[in-house]
Amino acid sequence: MATLVTGIGELTTNDDELGRMRDAALVLEGELVAWVGPAAEAPAADDAVDVGGRAVLPGWVDSHTHLVFAGDRTAEFEARMAGEPYAAGGIAATVAATREASDPELAATLDRLADEALRGGTTAIEVKTGYGLTIADEARSARIARGRADAVTFLGAHLVPEGADADGYVDLVAGEMLEAVAPLVDAVDVFCERGAFDEAQSRRVLEAAKERGLAMRVHGNQLGPGPGVRLAVELGALSVDHVAFLDDDEVALLADSWHGGRGTVATVLPACDLSTRMPLAPARRLLDAGAVVAIASNCNPGSSYTTSMAYCVATAVLQMGLSVEEAVRAATLGGAVALDRDAPRFDRHGQPLPPLGRLRPGARADLQVLDAPSATHLAYRPGVPLVHAVWRRGEAVLRPRS
Amino acid sequence: MATLVTGIGELTTNDDELGRMRDAALVLEGELVAWVGPAAEAPAADDAVDVGGRAVLPGWVDSHTHLVFAGDRTAEFEARMAGEPYAAGGIAATVAATREASDPELAATLDRLADEALRGGTTAIEVKTGYGLTIADEARSARIARGRADAVTFLGAHLVPEGADADGYVDLVAGEMLEAVAPLVDAVDVFCERGAFDEAQSRRVLEAAKERGLAMRVHGNQLGPGPGVRLAVELGALSVDHVAFLDDDEVALLADSWHGGRGTVATVLPACDLSTRMPLAPARRLLDAGAVVAIASNCNPGSSYTTSMAYCVATAVLQMGLSVEEAVRAATLGGAVALDRDAPRFDRHGQPLPPLGRLRPGARADLQVLDAPSATHLAYRPGVPLVHAVWRRGEAVLRPRS
Ligand SMILES: [Zn+2]
Ligand SMILES: [Zn+2]
Repeated sequence: MATLVTGIGELTTNDDELGRMRDAALVLEGELVAWVGPAAEAPAADDAVDVGGRAVLPGWVDSHTHLVFAGDRTAEFEARMAGEPYAAGGIAATVAATREASDPELAATLDRLADEALRGGTTAIEVKTGYGLTIADEARSARIARGRADAVTFLGAHLVPEGADADGYVDLVAGEMLEAVAPLVDAVDVFCERGAFDEAQSRRVLEAAKERGLAMRVHGNQLGPGPGVRLAVELGALSVDHVAFLDDDEVALLADSWHGGRGTVATVLPACDLSTRMPLAPARRLLDAGAVVAIASNCNPGSSYTTSMAYCVATAVLQMGLSVEEAVRAATLGGAVALDRDAPRFDRHGQPLPPLGRLRPGARADLQVLDAPSATHLAYRPGVPLVHAVWRRGEAVLRPRS
Repeated sequence: MATLVTGIGELTTNDDELGRMRDAALVLEGELVAWVGPAAEAPAADDAVDVGGRAVLPGWVDSHTHLVFAGDRTAEFEARMAGEPYAAGGIAATVAATREASDPELAATLDRLADEALRGGTTAIEVKTGYGLTIADEARSARIARGRADAVTFLGAHLVPEGADADGYVDLVAGEMLEAVAPLVDAVDVFCERGAFDEAQSRRVLEAAKERGLAMRVHGNQLGPGPGVRLAVELGALSVDHVAFLDDDEVALLADSWHGGRGTVATVLPACDLSTRMPLAPARRLLDAGAVVAIASNCNPGSSYTTSMAYCVATAVLQMGLSVEEAVRAATLGGAVALDRDAPRFDRHGQPLPPLGRLRPGARADLQVLDAPSATHLAYRPGVPLVHAVWRRGEAVLRPRS
C-alpha cells in the first residue's frame, strides 16, 4: 500500500542533495518514505492526498522529555512566577507522587501527553525515567516508557532521594539499579548540576553505562557554569542538554567533538529556559562555532510543562537568533542525531530501525503538514496552531481536512 | 433559552466581588450572562453543559489588530530574522496589495483570521483600517471591518503614501478622509513614530477626531522614545499602544491619567515586540506604578502576524514579569477598558452594548473553557493549544467535546 502526498508547496527534506523543494510530492510505502521529487514527476500510487500547496516538513524529533510522572506542580510554577528562583528540589514532589501512582495512571499520563505532542507534529520522542529513584520504580518507569517512546533513557541520577547518602545512592544507580533497567533502556543520563550530582558522581554513573555499551547523556550547565559539558564530550556522550552557561572553550569543545567522527550534540531547551526565567542557551554561538545543535521540549511538570516543539522553534528564531531553517533542522534532524537515529540502525533484536529527521527514500515516513505555505510561518505566526496533518510511520495519525 | 455551564473547576470573573471562584457555574441567557455562583446553588436552565472541572475565563478582548489587508510579507520577515532591522516602510507593500484586492478578497482574509482568533479564545476584536490610504480605500476598509469587528478604528495616518507630501496628506486624513469614514468607525488612531507622523501631524489628526466626538488611539513609543504617550494622555486618548520605550515620567503620566476619571490605557503588544526583535514593553513597571495595562496581538502581516492572545499572555508572564492573573486580566478586561466597553454602553443607533471582559450578570456571554484545571496553565504550558470550548454572545461557537 503506497500513498502519494502531492501538492506540497514547500518541502523541507533535511537532505543535502534534495534540499528545500517547491511543488514537490512524496510517496509513503509501509512505514517508509519511498520516493521524493517534483510533483510533476511523481509515480502512481494506491492512494493520493493533495495538501493544497501547504508546507511539509519532517515531524519533530523531541529528544528530551520526562513523561513518566504523576502529580501536580502548578503551585510551584505560580510561586516561581511570583519571584521564587527555580531549584532542582521540586523534583522530589514529583518523585513522591510518581511512587504513589499505579502503572495504568502513569501510562495514561504518558499516553495523553504523547498524543498531545503528536497532534502538535512530534512524531518521535525520547522519554526519561527519573521520578522513581528506587530499583522497582525506575524499572517500572522504563517498562512504561518502552513501547510508547522511540528512545528510553535511564535517569536514576536525577536527584539524591530524600534521606539517602549521595555516594551510596550513586553506588546503587551505577550498580544494581542500572543492572535492573539496562535491558529496558537505550541510554543513561545524569543531572550534573549543583544541588544534584557533582562531577565525580556523574562520571561514575556514566562510566558504568559506557561499560555496558549503553549510550550516555548529560543534563549540564543549566543553572550555572559546571563540569557537565566537559564530561559529556570527554566520555563521548550522545548529547549534553540545557547548556545555558557556556564559556568559549566549552563551545569550542562541543564543535571540535565532531572532528573525525560522531561527537556530542548540544541540546537547547528554550521552553525550559523561559519557564524557569533563566537566560536562553547560546544556540547562535554554538551554531556559529560549528557545533551540532538539537532543540527539544524537556516536557516535565516542573521546569517546562509543554509538548510544543513549535513554541520552542518560534522562540529559537525570535529570541535566540536562529533562522527558521536552522531552528527547524535542530528540532527534527538535530533531535535525530541526538538519539543516534539519523542513519539506519538495528534494535537489540536485530530489527532494522529506519532513520528519523529527514524526508528521503528509506527514512521513516514521519511528516507534518502545516496550514501555511512555508515553514517560515512557524516563527512568523507564533502561538498559532499550524499543524494541519501528521503522518507517523506512514500512517495518517492526524488526517488532512479537506 | 438559558444554558447552564457547570462543573467549572476555576472561574475567573474579573469582578471585584465575585473574584476567582472554585466549583462554580454560570447561566447564559440570550447573549448575556444571567447568573454566576457556586455550582451547588445554580438555578435550573433549559440546557446544561458540564465542563468537567476545567477552567473558565472571559474570552480574550483583542483591542489592537490590523486585519483588513492583502498580500504576503513572509520574505520581509525572513530578512528581519536574518538581521535586517524592522522599519515602518514595509507597510507600503501591504498598502499596494490591499488597493489591488477586491472587497470579497479582503473580507475573506478578515473572516479567516477572525475565525482563527475565535478558535483561540478571542471573542471580541478591534480592527483598524490603514492599508488603504485613499478616501475610497480607507472607507471600504472600514465598511469591511464594520459588522465583522466589535470596534473599528480609522488609521488613515498609518504611513504617508508614496509620492505624497506629509502635511498635505495629514490635511486629507484630518479633513475629507475623516469625513468619509466617520460614520463607519468608533475611533481614530495615528502612527506617531519617526518615519511616520511627528507630534504636530499626529496632534492635528487626533484633534480633528476629538472635534467630531470620536475616540482616539495612538501608536506610540514603539521604535524609540517619542511624543506619543504624552500626546495620548494630554488629549485623553482611550489607549496608547506599543509603549516599549518609556521614561519614568511617562509611566507616571499613564498611571496619573486615571486619577479622578477615565484615563489612557497602556496597551502592550508582546508578540510584536518579539517579532520585531525589539525590547519587551515594561508592563511590570506600568502595573507597579498603577497604570491600566491591556495586552493585544497587533495581528498584522508585517510586525506581528499572530492571532494568538494565549501566546501574548504566556510571554507576558514568562518574560515581562506579570503574574498569570495580571496577564489574563490585561488580555480580557484590560482590552475591554481600552475599547471603552468595560461598562454598559449604547451604539450609535441607541441599542445597548453589554460590557465585555468580565463574567458577571449583565455582561456579554463571551467565555472560553481551557483544557486545564486553571488559567495558570496558559503560562505553565506555553504553546499548547488549550482552548476546549468558546461561547460568544451566548452561542457555543466552539462546542465542548465530551
Ligand atoms: Zn530534563
Ligand atoms: Zn498596530
